Amino acid sequence: MQMRQLFDRDSSTYSYLLWDKQNLEAVMIDPVLEQSERDIRLIEELGLVLRYSLETHIHADHITGGGLLRERFNCHVAVHGNAQVPCADVWLKQGDHVLFGDNALKVLYTPGHTDTDICYLAADRVFTGDTLLIRGSGRTDFQSGDAGKAFDSITGQLFVLPDRIRVYPAHDYNGMTTSTIGEEKRHNPRLGNNQTREGYMRIMSDMDLDKPQKIDLAVAGNQRCGISAAEGLVNQAGVIRE
Amino acid sequence: MQMRQLFDRDSSTYSYLLWDKQNLEAVMIDPVLEQSERDIRLIEELGLVLRYSLETHIHADHITGGGLLRERFNCHVAVHGNAQVPCADVWLKQGDHVLFGDNALKVLYTPGHTDTDICYLAADRVFTGDTLLIRGSGRTDFQSGDAGKAFDSITGQLFVLPDRIRVYPAHDYNGMTTSTIGEEKRHNPRLGNNQTREGYMRIMSDMDLDKPQKIDLAVAGNQRCGISAAEGLVNQAGVIRE
Repeated sequence: MQMRQLFDRDSSTYSYLLWDKQNLEAVMIDPVLEQSERDIRLIEELGLVLRYSLETHIHADHITGGGLLRERFNCHVAVHGNAQVPCADVWLKQGDHVLFGDNALKVLYTPGHTDTDICYLAADRVFTGDTLLIRGSGRTDFQSGDAGKAFDSITGQLFVLPDRIRVYPAHDYNGMTTSTIGEEKRHNPRLGNNQTREGYMRIMSDMDLDKPQKIDLAVAGNQRCGISAAEGLVNQAGVIRE
Repeated sequence: MQMRQLFDRDSSTYSYLLWDKQNLEAVMIDPVLEQSERDIRLIEELGLVLRYSLETHIHADHITGGGLLRERFNCHVAVHGNAQVPCADVWLKQGDHVLFGDNALKVLYTPGHTDTDICYLAADRVFTGDTLLIRGSGRTDFQSGDAGKAFDSITGQLFVLPDRIRVYPAHDYNGMTTSTIGEEKRHNPRLGNNQTREGYMRIMSDMDLDKPQKIDLAVAGNQRCGISAAEGLVNQAGVIRE
């Protein structure tokens, strides 16, 4: 499996372009609307056949580029079934496999940050969305967030993976690009040292974070896959494409 | 060879921590002073034995964390011999090898952006500093820059490598993290399509860029490895550590 990690500076979001070396079938995880021009150019330069645009969850901090990628490449837009997203083509659930070339991503349903969280597991790496961040984890105080469920997802579905598995999150705010399951089990300040469910819930409830500035616009935009057939492209300024 | 790519948002600089899986000997390429706390913590968490802090050149946009890493880990600070940097421990030249564990980085002297440019070549990847960027290249209008020499370095030392070799640059301003030699030969707008030396020199001389804001402070700070024995730590605000 070939991979390209891509960064959106404004929202500190990582997108991931994955492809099969032989037949060039590809998937994009968590594309960002504002980076669509860059991403489309890269996909074309590499000569890839984009099969899926995959969301790890319904984001509250940026709008997906999935709808635009579908317009350009005729790919399928996939989200978890819990997401009320009629614009999607595929609704994923625990245990599903996303196939591209000889590669498979296994869907792990990992609710907690939201009730739509998916981690995508490959042979040697896992794309953890906002479920598990590098030395951190996604907040659980909005969008059906639930710190107890988040703890269960992280410890029950991610920390049972081999230590060597690489962790690729949806965000990093400190310039880190990747980690491993072993590192997070040992060094994640919220989860390391055999943290208890109650201890984790206490940490998360004590965080007292501001509401994301763009949450209303972002969630609404993502429920339309970044595009409304009637209204056109939705950007983060709320401007509608002609 | 294990690798961790690290990003400094202010200067859009990539640093690279490389290590040997077996004996944990490590090198850091282009550490950034302001990220020293993050980098030191990561090196300690991973249990690495840092042997070298390697510069790809004398930077004009940020100050190195090399001196501080040496203070903490007793590693060697290495730069190209052309750099007038008395604080360094090792002066590298074309064809040298930097060894850590069972790994070797071969030194390619690639002048053009400055007269101190080094690319570090491993078996499957090359760390290209500012010599070759993703779909771009380092400016050549200050610090002994020379567009003709830059063209010779890129085409004579990098574009002769196999297409599959991964390119890891010192900067990216568009959220790209890596490329390949083949991609840059085909898609780099300054260098692709069999660009001529004259064509490249014309592009570079037409760029008309502003002088980097921090050049005087950064170059002076880097000539002291980010630390002056007499004066202490130099940061980008020009503040001296007590």
